[in-house]
Amino acid sequence: MTEAIERVLAEIGFDSDGLVPAVAQQHDTGEVLMLAWMNRDAVRASLSEGRACYWSRTRQRLWRKGETSGQVQLLHELRLDCDGDALLLLVDQQGVACHTGRRSCFFRGWRGGAWTMLTDPLIPPETLYPETAERPDGAAPAESSG
Amino acid sequence: MTEAIERVLAEIGFDSDGLVPAVAQQHDTGEVLMLAWMNRDAVRASLSEGRACYWSRTRQRLWRKGETSGQVQLLHELRLDCDGDALLLLVDQQGVACHTGRRSCFFRGWRGGAWTMLTDPLIPPETLYPETAERPDGAAPAESSG
Repeated sequence: MTEAIERVLAEIGFDSDGLVPAVAQQHDTGEVLMLAWMNRDAVRASLSEGRACYWSRTRQRLWRKGETSGQVQLLHELRLDCDGDALLLLVDQQGVACHTGRRSCFFRGWRGGAWTMLTDPLIPPETLYPETAERPDGAAPAESSG
Repeated sequence: MTEAIERVLAEIGFDSDGLVPAVAQQHDTGEVLMLAWMNRDAVRASLSEGRACYWSRTRQRLWRKGETSGQVQLLHELRLDCDGDALLLLVDQQGVACHTGRRSCFFRGWRGGAWTMLTDPLIPPETLYPETAERPDGAAPAESSG
C-alpha cells in the first residue's frame, strides 16, 4: 500500500507550496461539493484511510474532512487530470460538505446580474460547530475550505 | 452589463497572483471536465461573451477555450463557493474538453494501486491541433490547461 501511494505521488505536480487543488464530487449524483487543497501527506492520508483529507491553508495543518462536524467524505476514487496538476475526488459525502450547512459549497449562482443563493442550509451551522458558535471571538469555522 | 460584472468581481477572492481556480462541469450530465484558472479579465470575458475564457499560466495570456481547437465551452452559469475563492462553471462543452482529445481531463483513476486510463480519446489530438503536430519543437499544445 505504502509503495503504491508513493507511486501516486510521483505523478502529481504539486505547486511551489507543495499543494494541488482537489475537487470533491459526489460519486453517484455528480454534484460538485467543494474545492480544497492537498499536500503529499493529505494524499497519503486520504488513500490509506479511505476518506478525504485536505491541507488547510488557513490553519496550516492536515484537515480530515468531518473531523469536527462528522460530515465525512468516504473516498470512492481518486482521479488525476491530463497535466497532473489537479485532482478529482469521487466521494460519498456524509451529510453536508459546506461549513454553512449546505450540501455543496458552490451555492451562489450569478443570475440576473447578482449572486443568488441557490440552496438553503440543511443543517444549522451552529449544530455542526457548537464550539465555534460559543466562541465570542468569531473565529473561522474549523472546516472552512480555505 | 459592465457594472454587473464588476459586482461579480468584487465578491471573488483572487489570490496573490490575481488568479482563482475554476472547475468546468457539463451542465446536464454533471461530468467534471477540467480545472483551470481565471483572472479578472477572464471572468469579464466569460460573462460578457457567454463562453469560458481562462488565464493560461504557462502562456501568460487569456485563453478562450476552443480558440484553436474549436472545442468551445458555452457558459450556462457561474457559481461561487462559500469562501469566494473558487469558481464553478456550468458549461455546455462542444466536443471535448481535454487537449488529449478526451471528453474530460480527469481520465486517470487510481485503481488497484496504479493510475488507470478510464477513457480513450474521442478525437485524435493531431486533428485538434494540426499546427502543433507539425511543429518539431514539441511545444505544448495550445490548449493544455496549465
